Amino acid sequence: MVLGKVAVLGPKGTFSEAAADDYYQGNCRKLFFNTLSEVFDVVEEGKADEAVVPVENVLGGTVMETLMRLNSSDLLVKAEVLLEVHYVLASMTKDAFGSRVFGHPQAIEQCREFLKKRYPETTFVSSTSNAQALQDLVDSNDGNAVALGPKAKAEFLGLEILFEKVEGKKHNLTRFFVVGKEETSSTGKDRTTVVFDPLADRPGLLYDLLGVFASRKVNLSKIESAPSKKQLGTYVFFLDFEGHREDELVVQLLEEASKLGKVKILGSYPMVY
Amino acid sequence: MVLGKVAVLGPKGTFSEAAADDYYQGNCRKLFFNTLSEVFDVVEEGKADEAVVPVENVLGGTVMETLMRLNSSDLLVKAEVLLEVHYVLASMTKDAFGSRVFGHPQAIEQCREFLKKRYPETTFVSSTSNAQALQDLVDSNDGNAVALGPKAKAEFLGLEILFEKVEGKKHNLTRFFVVGKEETSSTGKDRTTVVFDPLADRPGLLYDLLGVFASRKVNLSKIESAPSKKQLGTYVFFLDFEGHREDELVVQLLEEASKLGKVKILGSYPMVY
Repeated sequence: MVLGKVAVLGPKGTFSEAAADDYYQGNCRKLFFNTLSEVFDVVEEGKADEAVVPVENVLGGTVMETLMRLNSSDLLVKAEVLLEVHYVLASMTKDAFGSRVFGHPQAIEQCREFLKKRYPETTFVSSTSNAQALQDLVDSNDGNAVALGPKAKAEFLGLEILFEKVEGKKHNLTRFFVVGKEETSSTGKDRTTVVFDPLADRPGLLYDLLGVFASRKVNLSKIESAPSKKQLGTYVFFLDFEGHREDELVVQLLEEASKLGKVKILGSYPMVY
Repeated sequence: MVLGKVAVLGPKGTFSEAAADDYYQGNCRKLFFNTLSEVFDVVEEGKADEAVVPVENVLGGTVMETLMRLNSSDLLVKAEVLLEVHYVLASMTKDAFGSRVFGHPQAIEQCREFLKKRYPETTFVSSTSNAQALQDLVDSNDGNAVALGPKAKAEFLGLEILFEKVEGKKHNLTRFFVVGKEETSSTGKDRTTVVFDPLADRPGLLYDLLGVFASRKVNLSKIESAPSKKQLGTYVFFLDFEGHREDELVVQLLEEASKLGKVKILGSYPMVY
């Protein structure tokens, strides 16, 4: 059996890797890249078969970079993956007093209350990913610094784990997309993601668009505006709704929506929540 | 005259600092922090009077961290600032062949085509801000690496500038919010930002909300969903529209919107575009 190549945001130990493990159950070869740009590039160029990319986090919000790139790419969303995200607080030494806290900005924001209470005088240092935050701690060689990151990565680096589930009782889910070049066929319980680019910038156009969904009682599970890249103040809209692109109702709905603007289907995939 | 203290994302030389310079015209004392978390914290704690934070970029999209934090804070938006963003490509030596490219992920994505053509074999390295990317280049001490960042910072660090306006002909505007504790009075041409938290998760509720705006011909300049933090799949909506919170029409509109969900006003401020 030849394993497919899957591109994910690195370094090894990121939550993106955990999402890929969850989805492929070991049946893939993972390739790690430093930026989401490259992760998309290698799939477009055929150097990898698929990619697993973060889309949104229940506490941190949308990963705009992923949506913007999907809009300008021919890649399709073929699946969604949900991952519960937990942070550990790690250090090089057991008695680190927290002179500095390394963390991805989103992790720092999510664990802010805990950190402010435990280390009121600390300085936050941004890292470019959750796994990288732990690596940055190691590279700093600072016995008094601490870092937020994934438990598996902290163990891999041999760090002291001072505290688990630093984010508290929050239900900290992250949603990932699996993207590739092929479509996924209907399962009967699917979700579709589209980008809508309005024909005109007039008050009420978005209202009319939502009417197309409301009149058919199609549940819009997400709507997100993003700059059209033409000028500030003009937007495209990313919409998630229930149904598969091949469903009769969805075909009709998208046909009517097309009268109001350009519709690009990013993919239909099995609904996991 | 006592100058107010303004918190911005550091290090010195970020586009956030340029936006602050633009707005305050030198009449402030700037305090730099590593994360947006801290920038908000110090204003909430009274250690700074105001902050300048990025909200959206015409090519990169919304800065979700800023919206999410505004939603959970009592701080108010008192002004918006638009800044045209240009990147230079800089290096330590004139003949750097681009073995690595340091850059903020958004800058790398925006300059991707140029970089892929010029350095087809390069590796991208993420930095935590545009100014930091140039600092990371200096810290790497790698004569063959290059970095994307603001021109002023490259000059300050004494770097070679290999190329200007790397982003090409794109009109690369970034929008910033000035946040503080006080409201801004009406100027006659204002914009208001609110967060809407729906009372129920039912199909069509958002449609009804937009009807409140459409029926009054109030132009909604932006709509953005963000996770409600309760569970994945439930959202709050950030809305930008024309008018001031004290305008009669806006008062009526928000009263009617309140029947559909909780409305929190983040601020009314002079419209700059």
